[in-house]
Amino acid sequence: MSGNTFGKIFTVSTFGESHGLAIGGVVDGCPPGLELCEDDLQGDLDRRKPGTSRYTTARREEDEVKILSGVFEGKTTGTSIGLLINNTDQRSQDYSKIKDAFRPGHADYTYQQKFGFRDYRGGGRSSARETAVRVAAGGIAKKYLKQIYGIEVRGYLSQLGPIAIDCVDHSVTNTNPFFCPDETKLEALDAYMRDLKKEGNSIGAKVSVSAVNVPVGLGEPVFDRLDAEIAHAMMGINAVKGVELGDGFDVVTQKGTDHRDQMSPEGFHSNHSGGVLGGISTGQEILVHMALKPTSSISISGETIDADGKSADIITKGRHDPCVGIRAVPIAEAMLALVLMDHLLRHRAQNAGIVSPTPVIPAQR
Amino acid sequence: MSGNTFGKIFTVSTFGESHGLAIGGVVDGCPPGLELCEDDLQGDLDRRKPGTSRYTTARREEDEVKILSGVFEGKTTGTSIGLLINNTDQRSQDYSKIKDAFRPGHADYTYQQKFGFRDYRGGGRSSARETAVRVAAGGIAKKYLKQIYGIEVRGYLSQLGPIAIDCVDHSVTNTNPFFCPDETKLEALDAYMRDLKKEGNSIGAKVSVSAVNVPVGLGEPVFDRLDAEIAHAMMGINAVKGVELGDGFDVVTQKGTDHRDQMSPEGFHSNHSGGVLGGISTGQEILVHMALKPTSSISISGETIDADGKSADIITKGRHDPCVGIRAVPIAEAMLALVLMDHLLRHRAQNAGIVSPTPVIPAQR
Amino acid sequence: MSGNTFGKIFTVSTFGESHGLAIGGVVDGCPPGLELCEDDLQGDLDRRKPGTSRYTTARREEDEVKILSGVFEGKTTGTSIGLLINNTDQRSQDYSKIKDAFRPGHADYTYQQKFGFRDYRGGGRSSARETAVRVAAGGIAKKYLKQIYGIEVRGYLSQLGPIAIDCVDHSVTNTNPFFCPDETKLEALDAYMRDLKKEGNSIGAKVSVSAVNVPVGLGEPVFDRLDAEIAHAMMGINAVKGVELGDGFDVVTQKGTDHRDQMSPEGFHSNHSGGVLGGISTGQEILVHMALKPTSSISISGETIDADGKSADIITKGRHDPCVGIRAVPIAEAMLALVLMDHLLRHRAQNAGIVSPTPVIPAQR
Amino acid sequence: MSGNTFGKIFTVSTFGESHGLAIGGVVDGCPPGLELCEDDLQGDLDRRKPGTSRYTTARREEDEVKILSGVFEGKTTGTSIGLLINNTDQRSQDYSKIKDAFRPGHADYTYQQKFGFRDYRGGGRSSARETAVRVAAGGIAKKYLKQIYGIEVRGYLSQLGPIAIDCVDHSVTNTNPFFCPDETKLEALDAYMRDLKKEGNSIGAKVSVSAVNVPVGLGEPVFDRLDAEIAHAMMGINAVKGVELGDGFDVVTQKGTDHRDQMSPEGFHSNHSGGVLGGISTGQEILVHMALKPTSSISISGETIDADGKSADIITKGRHDPCVGIRAVPIAEAMLALVLMDHLLRHRAQNAGIVSPTPVIPAQR
Repeated sequence: MSGNTFGKIFTVSTFGESHGLAIGGVVDGCPPGLELCEDDLQGDLDRRKPGTSRYTTARREEDEVKILSGVFEGKTTGTSIGLLINNTDQRSQDYSKIKDAFRPGHADYTYQQKFGFRDYRGGGRSSARETAVRVAAGGIAKKYLKQIYGIEVRGYLSQLGPIAIDCVDHSVTNTNPFFCPDETKLEALDAYMRDLKKEGNSIGAKVSVSAVNVPVGLGEPVFDRLDAEIAHAMMGINAVKGVELGDGFDVVTQKGTDHRDQMSPEGFHSNHSGGVLGGISTGQEILVHMALKPTSSISISGETIDADGKSADIITKGRHDPCVGIRAVPIAEAMLALVLMDHLLRHRAQNAGIVSPTPVIPAQR
Repeated sequence: MSGNTFGKIFTVSTFGESHGLAIGGVVDGCPPGLELCEDDLQGDLDRRKPGTSRYTTARREEDEVKILSGVFEGKTTGTSIGLLINNTDQRSQDYSKIKDAFRPGHADYTYQQKFGFRDYRGGGRSSARETAVRVAAGGIAKKYLKQIYGIEVRGYLSQLGPIAIDCVDHSVTNTNPFFCPDETKLEALDAYMRDLKKEGNSIGAKVSVSAVNVPVGLGEPVFDRLDAEIAHAMMGINAVKGVELGDGFDVVTQKGTDHRDQMSPEGFHSNHSGGVLGGISTGQEILVHMALKPTSSISISGETIDADGKSADIITKGRHDPCVGIRAVPIAEAMLALVLMDHLLRHRAQNAGIVSPTPVIPAQR
Repeated sequence: MSGNTFGKIFTVSTFGESHGLAIGGVVDGCPPGLELCEDDLQGDLDRRKPGTSRYTTARREEDEVKILSGVFEGKTTGTSIGLLINNTDQRSQDYSKIKDAFRPGHADYTYQQKFGFRDYRGGGRSSARETAVRVAAGGIAKKYLKQIYGIEVRGYLSQLGPIAIDCVDHSVTNTNPFFCPDETKLEALDAYMRDLKKEGNSIGAKVSVSAVNVPVGLGEPVFDRLDAEIAHAMMGINAVKGVELGDGFDVVTQKGTDHRDQMSPEGFHSNHSGGVLGGISTGQEILVHMALKPTSSISISGETIDADGKSADIITKGRHDPCVGIRAVPIAEAMLALVLMDHLLRHRAQNAGIVSPTPVIPAQR
Repeated sequence: MSGNTFGKIFTVSTFGESHGLAIGGVVDGCPPGLELCEDDLQGDLDRRKPGTSRYTTARREEDEVKILSGVFEGKTTGTSIGLLINNTDQRSQDYSKIKDAFRPGHADYTYQQKFGFRDYRGGGRSSARETAVRVAAGGIAKKYLKQIYGIEVRGYLSQLGPIAIDCVDHSVTNTNPFFCPDETKLEALDAYMRDLKKEGNSIGAKVSVSAVNVPVGLGEPVFDRLDAEIAHAMMGINAVKGVELGDGFDVVTQKGTDHRDQMSPEGFHSNHSGGVLGGISTGQEILVHMALKPTSSISISGETIDADGKSADIITKGRHDPCVGIRAVPIAEAMLALVLMDHLLRHRAQNAGIVSPTPVIPAQR
């Protein structure tokens, strides 16, 4: 229980269901003195927001966040920050048909079995709707990291079904509805999604997220390594089934001579590690990849059971994204920012005292 | 900080360095009444132990665990369990040469930068030596899970470099030094490792671990999902760079119709999810894969820097495993057992009250 | 940091300042299936509410709580519960004069020094206004404890300045504005407060809170003893300077033969311990006392300093309780309920397994 | 469960029973670079140690602490510190008679009921023997606080039965077996204890502990206030039944004009608050008092029940302190040091960033 809080000393506790009155949360541990207003958070909320393109759910939510506390005269006070986002466009009637049957590939069955009872409207708490609060909270972390440490957290779509995408240009990512950093792939993506929609099916995706200017030294051995907590954060995003740091699963076939990132006075020669060694940041770019499954909310009939265990067929109507991976980009950024923020404060707590090492090689992207 | 504790209500706090006097820890939250003695834990410690085959480090440790508290007249009392393993075969002199240089691909540089100071003997706290305590602690969880719930946790080597291995027969796994569940692959593994040793190089590996008879309902939405905590646990094992649940990265190219695990009164038709939906166990087999990098401790010279940032060459002598992935099998099992144990107790705390659901479909392997 | 969360597995995270837009919080870990609506919480909020008598602050707040999530079709779902109370009657202009001076006996100076910056309006986060959220969250715990275990948590005023009050009749407590369980003391209390108001001064108080029908066995050795966590909870209430269990400070002059609660097959002969032995509940009444200081917000001028460290005089205007202890009664009840709820779930997690002891003596009030 | 860890980011996890093989623990989060050796901890262990005077238990334990990890070349490395103290003088046979009966006033009954099973030898985990580990861990905190911040933590006996003791001179405290800071009271104490021993009875005590040079700003609103965590720590010491900060229960009869600590440019005029306002340290002396009950282990027969609920008489033989309060002095110091250390690091985490306030009045004792 108590699974609704993330972080150890920079913490986010969230609440809210897909079709409740509102979603929101409490951000605790934010340093005082940070200039902060709703506009700082709204940008990422808009990026995550449903209804922004024809390839995401048609549900329209304003996702307008309100900061209810913790900010005074435009600056954080160091006390807890209350966040609230009202739900405005719930069409609960859409879900009445799935009240008594478990959608395959969804949390319906597991919630019912865990709690003996479930809010079936739009998946209730298991809906990705709650991630809006993560994005808002992550926005606070992002601002602090950027302003005080120059850290930048940036995500992008790195694969959609069969279409692999290289990170050609970060500045392109936010100019298209796919968060695709390679303009030459946009047409193919568009065509693929059009066909998919016609088919009534959905598709998996790979999302990548990176952070630059992360100081060397973040991460706590042995269990709370930076990479372990990143994996926790990313695998906790709806639909994620795999997480990689740096070379990820490619290391299986690498030899020691291939993988080890050699060093010279100018810095590391390579970044196979993804910016983490021994669970601690190296000062290089933190590079994370994750795999997101195709949503099971599709209009092709599937076999399932009802609440009595009897056989049933189901078509998931409602308004759903054919590729949930796309909208995960700002969520993954938010989660990475939350992990970095928590670890920055944790590092600072223990290491502000006797010794103050200076990096012996330059920070690297 | 305080990264040395794992779990929320079944917790393990560990201490110890590669070349210190001893390693050990505190296991807190174990239910009372469990029959427990050192022998219950020694088996897995022996499986993890160095010096057991010619393909693992030649360091010989007895790894004899002592239970110092929490057990009375052969049963756990419900109070904290103290574990101690003495270090017996340290050859610290081996490491004097690396005192002033950072081994590439190791935690030397990051520890030095984080703490301003490091125990360079054998990697100090960053050495995989500390995982012996995890294995001992995991043994307690394993015994409880098996005895009270019939849950079995089993790992195996699923790939070594280019050699992929299917889980043909779990009973074969512990009969060979590779934890390989397919006897037909043993010769190839042996040949590959022989060549590798000659070359003085190392190789990556893929390790898989599964749990059967896990009740439906374990996992806490939204941040402490079962899969998120498994990812945390596995990515926190030394050398792991990627973690997958079920189909993992294969989902990127799957369609919704491929991935969704349909259900009938007899149960699920498939297990693409790896036994977790919405972050909660489905009652199916929990299936986890992880990628382990090739160790950077190899006898082929590499470029690095010394503590003053000056260029240096390094050959890592000492006694090292050419494939650290192999010995990770019992460690991965221990970590999965720790996660399941913690979540079992967490689930029990919240759900022992008003509602007691019975699964509507049979538990499945 | 992150001091705004209470509890370990039944947790409450709160936000909000005296003069912000709203106060609220997240209650996590509530078992599913509990019937719950706003009315269940409103009663205690009304008891705590300012403006209910001429001896409490004249500030009028509706303190109308909204449950934003975690309840579906009238029952808790097992997911996090969002609580919101709008602030309606802020008169921030009252506080403009204290913007640049530190009120003696208040948190003004310490907040300014801790955070370098403070929301001076009504004490900001340090105001007792935030306790409304505790009362709402405690109401959830109270309902569960009562309904599932028959546990009753009841507080009362046990002393106001020189007027000591015995717990003559719990049913009288809520029939008067003093939470006084002895009707014969009401006139004296009324007279005392009238004089005090004329004087422009304030007075300390002693508040007591008890719980009956608590099962034997709650409390976790060695640091999270039930009494230790109760002390944590009570000392964390604004203005509390002392906490006692059972005989409290009287034990200093007791001998072993005086204090030890002897037992017979009918139960304990006495309850000097206050219902806790070795940090674990005995099944007897849990009895807690606390001392609350007189508020420093009085209309008699005092010496202080301003933000530049220069000498200044201050009279605290605004609307304040001459005895803050009175309104602490429902707050203390809420905190005791939160501690018991958390420990009940923690106990359940560990002890639902192998052994299920039955008390060998009857539960006792 | 998991009650055996204290602290949030400077944590201590302990294990061990009165008559087990050893007691010990893990200290996590200690900043790197602190010079530390066993001798730094042994002094306080010797102060706490049984067998040092004729008024404490005759059990003789060397209480020799070993540091097993986390220190390299005489300095802390920033990784977890393993502590071990072997038990050497257990006479378990002494306890065979109490195996089947519950000693009144002890944890025997509650442990049996909680866990269904108990280690009856010397109270098992409920014995004050475990506090030796707290003293060792607290010694680490004490050294850091003293060396880096100049903070001094000092305890003393402030009352024994009817004999009240003023803190005349801290330097006298450690020169007598009573931890009494007033030499003129030694004869009376000696006489009182002699009579008590003859009687076969025990007596309660009041212990006080203070800290000077604590920086302004420690403590986390709203639940983890410094005073709330101090109360948690102190009420968690065996036999403590009451805790006070500053004027404590005297505030009940104080008026606002009596209690408020007025300020001038030279500092506070008084310290009724005990150095904590709004849960945050003021920079003044932190002053804490606690009441310790008389031990129930006395040689005067008492009425109790056996494991079957039948009536029984009991005389507690074994070797026991007639006043357990005396030896609590170093334990209370250790716990206060642990709280301050944890809060110092927590404060540093959040407040090392944008704003760095300078106290506007001088620090005060």
